[in-house]
Amino acid sequence: MSKHLIIIGGVAAGTKAAAKARREDDSLKITLYTEDKHISYAGCGLPYFISDDIKSKEELLVRSPEDFKSKENINIHIKHRVTSIDPIKKEITVFNIKENLEINDEYDNLVIATGAYPIIPPIKGIDLQNIFTLRTINDAIEIKKLIDQNKVKRATIVGAGLIGLECAEAFAKRGLEVTVIELADQILSPFDKDMVREVQKHCIDKNIRIITSDGVKEFKGSGSVSQVITNNLQINTDIVILSIGVKPNISLASKAGIEIGQSGAIKVNKKMQTNIPNIYAAGDCVESTNLVTQKPTWVPLGSTANKQGRVAAINITGGHSEFSGVLGSLIVKVFDYTAAKTGLSEKEADKFGYDYESIVITGNDKARYYPNCKNITIKLLADKKTKKLLGSQIIGEGIVDKRIDLVAVALSSNEELKNIVNADLAYSPPYSMATDIILIAFNKLLSKLKT
Amino acid sequence: MSKHLIIIGGVAAGTKAAAKARREDDSLKITLYTEDKHISYAGCGLPYFISDDIKSKEELLVRSPEDFKSKENINIHIKHRVTSIDPIKKEITVFNIKENLEINDEYDNLVIATGAYPIIPPIKGIDLQNIFTLRTINDAIEIKKLIDQNKVKRATIVGAGLIGLECAEAFAKRGLEVTVIELADQILSPFDKDMVREVQKHCIDKNIRIITSDGVKEFKGSGSVSQVITNNLQINTDIVILSIGVKPNISLASKAGIEIGQSGAIKVNKKMQTNIPNIYAAGDCVESTNLVTQKPTWVPLGSTANKQGRVAAINITGGHSEFSGVLGSLIVKVFDYTAAKTGLSEKEADKFGYDYESIVITGNDKARYYPNCKNITIKLLADKKTKKLLGSQIIGEGIVDKRIDLVAVALSSNEELKNIVNADLAYSPPYSMATDIILIAFNKLLSKLKT
Repeated sequence: MSKHLIIIGGVAAGTKAAAKARREDDSLKITLYTEDKHISYAGCGLPYFISDDIKSKEELLVRSPEDFKSKENINIHIKHRVTSIDPIKKEITVFNIKENLEINDEYDNLVIATGAYPIIPPIKGIDLQNIFTLRTINDAIEIKKLIDQNKVKRATIVGAGLIGLECAEAFAKRGLEVTVIELADQILSPFDKDMVREVQKHCIDKNIRIITSDGVKEFKGSGSVSQVITNNLQINTDIVILSIGVKPNISLASKAGIEIGQSGAIKVNKKMQTNIPNIYAAGDCVESTNLVTQKPTWVPLGSTANKQGRVAAINITGGHSEFSGVLGSLIVKVFDYTAAKTGLSEKEADKFGYDYESIVITGNDKARYYPNCKNITIKLLADKKTKKLLGSQIIGEGIVDKRIDLVAVALSSNEELKNIVNADLAYSPPYSMATDIILIAFNKLLSKLKT
Repeated sequence: MSKHLIIIGGVAAGTKAAAKARREDDSLKITLYTEDKHISYAGCGLPYFISDDIKSKEELLVRSPEDFKSKENINIHIKHRVTSIDPIKKEITVFNIKENLEINDEYDNLVIATGAYPIIPPIKGIDLQNIFTLRTINDAIEIKKLIDQNKVKRATIVGAGLIGLECAEAFAKRGLEVTVIELADQILSPFDKDMVREVQKHCIDKNIRIITSDGVKEFKGSGSVSQVITNNLQINTDIVILSIGVKPNISLASKAGIEIGQSGAIKVNKKMQTNIPNIYAAGDCVESTNLVTQKPTWVPLGSTANKQGRVAAINITGGHSEFSGVLGSLIVKVFDYTAAKTGLSEKEADKFGYDYESIVITGNDKARYYPNCKNITIKLLADKKTKKLLGSQIIGEGIVDKRIDLVAVALSSNEELKNIVNADLAYSPPYSMATDIILIAFNKLLSKLKT
C-alpha cells in the first residue's frame, strides 16, 4: 500500500512540499488540508493587486486545487480546519467547515505549514468596519473593492514595516491620502535608522504623511472607522491597515507536544523535522538558524517557505536535503527607492556583541555617463576578529537588489573579505561602474579592517 | 628625497595606479606618460557616445591632466611615447611628440600599463577611408562626426563580438543600415552557440543583417570604402568598423627583457610585479590566472585593469594587496537583450578536459504577475568530481546582470554547489520570483550531479 503524506496549510511551504513530493515519488498518496478557500497564492503580491499593477486576483493564484488534482493527483481540501494531531496514532482530526463535519485521517508523514497570522492589537474600536490586515487574498479583495467603489479617500496605515510601506505606495497610486503611523522612531525597523532616513524623506516627497514615535490609542467611528486617535494626534480616515507584524501559527503543533523554539516558532532540524518522528514543519510557522550568528531566529518570508517546503519533501520521499538557515535578507520597493538588507544591521551586531568595523558609501549604480545612472548607498559590516562580512544594507534609486544578493552569496559562502574584494563581476557601462560600487565598498571596509 | 613612480599608459590601469598611489603616499613623486592626447577615459562607453546616449565626449573623460596636477600633484604628460626601459639604470627614454624631443627619466618603481591595440588584418583595401577600429576617443569622435554630418548610411561591422554588437546597436539607433560579418558560425564567440541563438534572432528582428561563417576578402572603393567583398557576398557600405579583437601592447616590455606569458601578454605575479625588480604591469597588457582552471589567460577588460592598477599601487607604496585572477566575466547589452558569462563555457570546459554536468533553464526574472516580468535563460556547469560550479551563461530580456554577478561571487568563493542552493536572496515581487530563477537552476544542477 502506498504511503500517505498529509500537509497542513496551502500557501507557499505547503503547496511546494506537495508538488515536490509528487515529483520525487509517483506512488505517494498526498493530501493537503487548508482552512482558507484559496491555495498557493502569492501573498507578497497583494500590495501590487491593490495598486492595480496586477489587475485580477487570478494572476496571484499560482495553482488551483483542480490543477493539483488533475495534473499531479494531489488531493487538496479547502475550508478544512485541522483541529488536532495524534502523534501516537499518526492521525489528525479535521473539521470540514462547509459541511460541518469532523473526520480523521491517518498519515505516514505529516508536514505542518500553518504559517503566520497578523497581530491585531486590543485597541478600543478595533472591531469597527474598514479596519484590515493584509495577509490573505480575501483581505486584498475587500480593500480593493472599497477603493474601486470610491468609498475610501483617506487611508491610515499602522506600522511602517515592509508591508506597511508597500500598502502606502499602493494607496497613493490609487489616489488616496495616506498617513503612516509607527511606534518606533524610524520606518523599516529591520534597518539602521541612518540608512532609512532618505527613504522616509522620499515617502514624504511622494505625499505620504509619516508619523514616527507615536502609537494608536483608539479607533473611532460609527459602523466604519472614521478617526484614528494616537498619543498626539487625531487623524480622520476612511480605512485602516494594521501592519504591525505577524506571529507564527503554532497552537496546533504546540497542543500535539511539538517543541517550540526560543523565537516562539516551531523548532526543526536542518531536515525540517520536528522533535516528533514523521512530523515535519516548514514555512512561516518554523524558526530558522541565523547563518551569521548561528542563533535561532524567526524571519517569515515566502522565499524561505518555498525552500523549506522543498527540503521537507525531499527528505520525506527518501532523499537527502538540508536547509541550513537564513540571513534575514529583505528587500522592499518604496516608490522609486529600493531598500534591502542581508545579514546583521549595526543594531543587531551590537545586540549580539560583535566587535565590528563598518562603512557607508554612496555611489553610482552604472557608469556615471550612462543614461539613467542613479545613486545607491551601501552600509557594510565586518567582524574585526574573523575579517568576514557580517551584513549589508543598501538603499537608493539605483539598482540595489543585484548588490544585496551578491552580499548574501558572500555571506553564505563564509569567505574572508579579502578573497572577494576583487571578485570578477561582469562589467559594461549599462550595468555598473568599471569597479562596481559594491567592490569599492568591500575595498574600503577591508582597508579599515587593516588599520 | 622622495621616491619616483613612473607610469606608462593613461587609460584605466595607469590612471588608477597613479591616483591610488597618491592616496597611499603623500610624498611620492608620480609621473605618467601617455602617447594619447586623452587620459582616463571610459573606453567601454564609446559605443554609447556614437549612439548619442552620451552627448558629449567630456562625459567620457573621467579626469583631465590638469585635474591630476592640481588636486593630486600627479604629472601627466600626454603625447609622450616611451621608447625604451633600462632596468639596470632604472631609467626610461621618452619621446615628446609635440616638441619632437627625447628625454630620459629615472624611476624607483615603474608601472607598465600600455594596454592593448586593435587587430587590423592585412586585407586588400584596408587603408581606404572610413574604415575604423573603435578603441580610442578619437576613433569615436571621427565615427560620430560622419554620422552627424549624414555622410554614412550603410555600416558594415567586421566581427560579431561584444564591441561589434554594441556598435551595431549604436549605428542602428542612429538610423544606419547595419551588416555584421563574422568568421565563426555564431555571434559572441565567448558564449556557447546554443546560448546566443536567441540574441542573434533578436538582432535580426532589430533589422541587423548578420552573416556568420564568412570572412572579408577585400575592401573596395575610391578614396572611401564603398564595398566589402566577403567569400560569398558583395556588400555596399559607407563605413566599416573592424572589431575582430585586440592584442596586448607588449613590445616595450619585451624589449626590456620582461617576461611574456603563455597567453602572449606580460607575465605578473599576484602583486602585479613582472620578473624585473621594481617594474610592475597592470591592465590590458598583462595576463591573469583563470580562477577556475588556475591557468594563464588574457581577458583585457576595464574592470580588471582598474583592480590591477589599484593592487600595483598598494604594493608599490608599501602596502600588501593581491590580484588572484579572473573568471572571464563578460556582459553585453544587445538591444533589449543582455548576454553575460562568468567562468567556463561548455566549449572551454571541453577544451580543458573537465568532466562536467550542465543544465539550461528558462524562467521569469521577477514574480510572474509583476508588470514587466521577462524571461531569462541560464546555463550552468558544475564539475562532477568537485561538485563545484565551473561557469554560467545567462541571456534574455530580463535582468541578467544580477544573476551572473551572484555566480561570479559563488565561483570566487569556491564553495560547493550544495552550500549555496538555498542562499537567502532578498525576495519581493518586483525583484524576483519567490525562489529566484538562479536558485532553481542551482537546484536542478545539484539534482543532476547527485544522479
